Amino acid sequence: MVGGLLAGLTTSLFAQESKEVEKKIDEIIKELTIDEKVAMCHAQSKFSSKGVPRLGIPELWMSDGPHGVRAEINWDNWGYADWTNDSITAFPALTALAATFNEDLSYEYGVAVGEEARYRKKDVLLGPGVNIYRTPLNGRNFEYMGEDPYLASQLVVPYIKGVQSNGVAACVKHFVANNQEHWRDHINVELSDRALHEIYLPAFKAAVEEGEVWSMMSAYNQVRGQYCSHNEFLVNGILKGDWAFDGALITDWGAAHDTKQSAEYGLDIEMGTGTNGLTYSEKNHYENYYLAGAFKEMVKNGEVSEDVLDDKVRRILRLMFRTSLAEGRPWGSVNTDAHHDVARRVAGEGIVLLKNEDNIFPVEASKKTKIAVIGENATRMMTIGGGSSELKVEYEISPLQGIQERFQNAEVVHSMGYASGAAQYGRVLPSPYNADSLKNAALEAVKDADIVLFFGGLNKNHNQDCEGDDRVAYDLPFGQEDLINAIAEVNENIAVVLISGNAVEMDWEKNVKGVMQGWYLGSEGGHALADVISGDVNPSGKLPFTFPKKLEDNSAHHYGEISYPGDGTNQEYKDGILVGYRWHDTKKIAPKYAFGYGLSYTSFEIDNINSNEKVFAANDQINITCDVKNTGAVDGAEVLQVYVGKPKSKVDRALKELKAYKKVHLAKGASQQIEMSINIDDLKYYSEEDKEWKLEEGQYMVYVGNSSDNIIKKIKITVGQKVN
Amino acid sequence: MVGGLLAGLTTSLFAQESKEVEKKIDEIIKELTIDEKVAMCHAQSKFSSKGVPRLGIPELWMSDGPHGVRAEINWDNWGYADWTNDSITAFPALTALAATFNEDLSYEYGVAVGEEARYRKKDVLLGPGVNIYRTPLNGRNFEYMGEDPYLASQLVVPYIKGVQSNGVAACVKHFVANNQEHWRDHINVELSDRALHEIYLPAFKAAVEEGEVWSMMSAYNQVRGQYCSHNEFLVNGILKGDWAFDGALITDWGAAHDTKQSAEYGLDIEMGTGTNGLTYSEKNHYENYYLAGAFKEMVKNGEVSEDVLDDKVRRILRLMFRTSLAEGRPWGSVNTDAHHDVARRVAGEGIVLLKNEDNIFPVEASKKTKIAVIGENATRMMTIGGGSSELKVEYEISPLQGIQERFQNAEVVHSMGYASGAAQYGRVLPSPYNADSLKNAALEAVKDADIVLFFGGLNKNHNQDCEGDDRVAYDLPFGQEDLINAIAEVNENIAVVLISGNAVEMDWEKNVKGVMQGWYLGSEGGHALADVISGDVNPSGKLPFTFPKKLEDNSAHHYGEISYPGDGTNQEYKDGILVGYRWHDTKKIAPKYAFGYGLSYTSFEIDNINSNEKVFAANDQINITCDVKNTGAVDGAEVLQVYVGKPKSKVDRALKELKAYKKVHLAKGASQQIEMSINIDDLKYYSEEDKEWKLEEGQYMVYVGNSSDNIIKKIKITVGQKVN
Repeated sequence: MVGGLLAGLTTSLFAQESKEVEKKIDEIIKELTIDEKVAMCHAQSKFSSKGVPRLGIPELWMSDGPHGVRAEINWDNWGYADWTNDSITAFPALTALAATFNEDLSYEYGVAVGEEARYRKKDVLLGPGVNIYRTPLNGRNFEYMGEDPYLASQLVVPYIKGVQSNGVAACVKHFVANNQEHWRDHINVELSDRALHEIYLPAFKAAVEEGEVWSMMSAYNQVRGQYCSHNEFLVNGILKGDWAFDGALITDWGAAHDTKQSAEYGLDIEMGTGTNGLTYSEKNHYENYYLAGAFKEMVKNGEVSEDVLDDKVRRILRLMFRTSLAEGRPWGSVNTDAHHDVARRVAGEGIVLLKNEDNIFPVEASKKTKIAVIGENATRMMTIGGGSSELKVEYEISPLQGIQERFQNAEVVHSMGYASGAAQYGRVLPSPYNADSLKNAALEAVKDADIVLFFGGLNKNHNQDCEGDDRVAYDLPFGQEDLINAIAEVNENIAVVLISGNAVEMDWEKNVKGVMQGWYLGSEGGHALADVISGDVNPSGKLPFTFPKKLEDNSAHHYGEISYPGDGTNQEYKDGILVGYRWHDTKKIAPKYAFGYGLSYTSFEIDNINSNEKVFAANDQINITCDVKNTGAVDGAEVLQVYVGKPKSKVDRALKELKAYKKVHLAKGASQQIEMSINIDDLKYYSEEDKEWKLEEGQYMVYVGNSSDNIIKKIKITVGQKVN
Repeated sequence: MVGGLLAGLTTSLFAQESKEVEKKIDEIIKELTIDEKVAMCHAQSKFSSKGVPRLGIPELWMSDGPHGVRAEINWDNWGYADWTNDSITAFPALTALAATFNEDLSYEYGVAVGEEARYRKKDVLLGPGVNIYRTPLNGRNFEYMGEDPYLASQLVVPYIKGVQSNGVAACVKHFVANNQEHWRDHINVELSDRALHEIYLPAFKAAVEEGEVWSMMSAYNQVRGQYCSHNEFLVNGILKGDWAFDGALITDWGAAHDTKQSAEYGLDIEMGTGTNGLTYSEKNHYENYYLAGAFKEMVKNGEVSEDVLDDKVRRILRLMFRTSLAEGRPWGSVNTDAHHDVARRVAGEGIVLLKNEDNIFPVEASKKTKIAVIGENATRMMTIGGGSSELKVEYEISPLQGIQERFQNAEVVHSMGYASGAAQYGRVLPSPYNADSLKNAALEAVKDADIVLFFGGLNKNHNQDCEGDDRVAYDLPFGQEDLINAIAEVNENIAVVLISGNAVEMDWEKNVKGVMQGWYLGSEGGHALADVISGDVNPSGKLPFTFPKKLEDNSAHHYGEISYPGDGTNQEYKDGILVGYRWHDTKKIAPKYAFGYGLSYTSFEIDNINSNEKVFAANDQINITCDVKNTGAVDGAEVLQVYVGKPKSKVDRALKELKAYKKVHLAKGASQQIEMSINIDDLKYYSEEDKEWKLEEGQYMVYVGNSSDNIIKKIKITVGQKVN
């Protein structure tokens, strides 16, 4: 009996593991028919999968995406359902979160977006994304946490814990090597074990082992000849084998391709498939999913063991007991002051000040300045577009609005300057504006301005930071470079705020005094930008990825088409472990702006940098201490960064790799001793021969600084036999 | 803070009253803005009202209807949403439940439909309906529990308790005097206090005082010049005053008509309004609801006290703490074996055997009979149509299917006989069939049949038992009478099964050997009919309303148009308290079939009928005992009925009124002494002069029988000074 099975579970089931729950799951599985079990393994609609109505086993309801809870979608097509109860808070894109280098903020972000998902009755929030930033062309970089596996690992864990504290599952995506959108639906990625384990897997591993994440989303692409949704090596071998992941693996929408492989190689829930050429209007097309009718057939005829099915159902039920069936989970909430505050603080700490000649920033708000705000992105809603992460916001403060609110003593004029064309998912309509007249109006507007704030960058249209395909060029689109240069000739007091989730080519940078990386900042974007521009908030963001001077300087692009985007069938990650700053450092290719870089309105003195020992054994911990002092005129925050390299090694090594960091907030004049720790274990490399992590003895170099290209002290240490 | 307010409520909140909850509600109301509070008082979509997202106060989700949980409707229009997870169990229409005279079954029904509502994430189930059956023309009688206020009261209470045991609110409807569909949206009902209190209110009163129902739905019509949704006398005076109802009053969809009255006369939630001529496509039309923008304005400018608003919000929050915010409420389930079983048993016990000449029933299933099944209703889906109670079933067993399954030794032939035209909500398309050819085919089919089973009646099309308007004639539609008579001439071994929620004219009855009232029986209808037809189930249903011989015999129709349907503006219930059998008894108008009547395949001897005393004081209880023996050849059930009348009274009285009943199941040969109790208090009449219930002393007559027209024993009793 129904109620009988689910009844009696009156205690809170948030516990990560529970014998009581596992026993209950055993009982339930015994009651289920094969048909019922199979029905749980695939979609019943665009964003839900079936429960077992007769037993009260609930449906599973999922929602995009990492930056907020997506608006309601129709049952069986991609149209919006036009509900009026689904306007939410848009949080900053995950690149901005990564730039905060602030784990506490990541937790607050997770709690807040999880609360919104919970109120919206979602069981699974489809995020966060932790694919590694390999090329600035990847259309979906804005949804991820940058180029460094350690940084992404540190930030994904608290995000997951925050979301899941609501009884809502996080769903870390996209497992794995979905590092470009171009050809994502079929491209086969070949990469070394070292690149896989040292660069592309760590954040997923941390999500499982430290974040205890309850679900994971497979990538669209193939790795080593098998689709990631049913990849024996990745799923059975690593995810569910080595890492003992006990949650559910969910496909990306339409990422399953084979019944037998889906069955046997660890796929638990298949979503979004359009199989066998069936159109979406065809009745009962869900029965044509790989994990539907054909799967049922295989289980019934013995081609696939029922145990295989039971394992999937067990994982799905476990997911339910952690979410929809968890007694005592909170109720959630939407659009709270607290959520708006989190969104604003993440945005404020994520903005990165890249250039600040003549202290063009901060702009004093008390003065009767004339501020010329130029650029389409000053007024464009950036929560629209971008693909599945698109949001329906209760409100979104534009940069212009933020400036106008904050600079009430100033005269704020606005001129669009350029126009990109209308945003439509999948394509861009030609702009109805005349480019010359827009440019001329802007040049007129900036003439007698005290300062020009240019809000440009990309815009989440197709090919401009958007799911589904990559950017087609590295430089700024829509004639922005010409426009910036032209404005700079009329008014040299110009600063550029880049609204983008990617690095862009910046030849124009020499002509402007200030540059700020403004990301996609969500509901509170305009407020956060005004906070930083006015100096109410002192910028403390650090770049989570490198800005190469030109595209060819990037590791993925160095080796030609086979490395990016591939030949249409295959792609080889020929850059191996040398991704991002690892590449630039090692190959001595100076970037425009380096990983970990970001300016402040104050200055910091970093001193007395020491390690606890010089020689370490395998189980030891390196403790790096230093004194940090805010020597400038305003309060601020600095991110101390510790990288480690091994100059002489039997394997290829990056010059240095981030191994620890600490963000420290200091009032002006204040100082603090801080300590950062690294386990010697974390210095291991992944051995291609032995297929395991190995510690190499010998000399290592520890680099301490406040940017990957601003190392203040190097400390030589030795790992090996300790002489006591 | 959000979580703060709702947190800490970890104990089960199913308690009907809870100081802890009331205190929590106080705290919440203090946090709410006027805008937020007003937003809770009206719809945000077709079937939901707003919560307070920033505080985690949930939305309220409602669903039609009494017989099962309606399919999902679009957010803002009446189209079905085409979800695929909303196929449910259809339970028998409430007339069938009433005919069971079985309170335990009513509880099981409530539990089951409540479980389905809960699984479907509904907080309020819009039912049951307890409007009194006044005329057989009322299009919505099938949703109600018959003509007797005592029977309806006895059966509504366990239904409510069953539904609400799931943490789903029942919503008893339609308060009050919505006893016809014609002109329901505006007709003003004038009726005496006695009729109101003695006939039309008791079931609502029982729902509140005994059922402790959490919500109630207002009627469309007016009573005494004020719409029922905001009727000072009915709502403030009786419902929330005299009865101390602490739940929420919800409008029927579109039944509110005035802001100030809605505010002050006790309406809590306004649903379904299309105001000010605004079309549904107009943006933000919900702001034009009477309890929306205009209400807010009145509260803000002081025309209506904020306390009035707070009282509504308090009731809505209380409703939430009993449902959506109730910790520990069960998970619900859909389409369980148990639900199907309840549906089948209610149907089986509700079917009423009206005529059984030559023991045409039961039809022996072991024999190689030839059974001719005739009539459109043998195959018609009766869960479709009828208005808001229409259901999307997982399956519905048609009568033909039930017969075919059960009578596998028989040759079952089927011929439609007549055709009604296509069912479309609001109108009926002409039948594409040729009536003569259908009739001829049927006459051919029955020729050499051993038995003819004719499934006819009404069909839930417009004007044929359907919300929105009444029937237009009392006789059987679509030429069924001619057809039955013609068949009877060809084959005299004919029985008619009436599928309807209403009495019909039955001049044809003399030509047939058997008649069964088969109602609208839901998913298991065909099985239940086959159960009874085959004798697997011995019929035990009793009519919950009178079948008059002709329409003019009915009380509502006796006084001409002003009594029914009214003059277009007003209507007077000139029949007063003499509704149903009260009218027929008192006026000595013999019905075709009487209230409480129903045959069995066995026979019962009812003997030794006695009362505990002959003289009773005001607080005494009359206990009637009798011996019931099953003297026939099969197991069966009988419904003992106790009526009381006061032959000489200073006020008008019905000859007799039902005051107690008991359904007793007896194996063949078994006998049992049963006892039925009546409080002397229940003999009171409602005094027009004193506006209160009054006990009249003197002689009363107690009638004991197994039908209102088959009284086996009369006992004279006296209420007054007791001589000890």
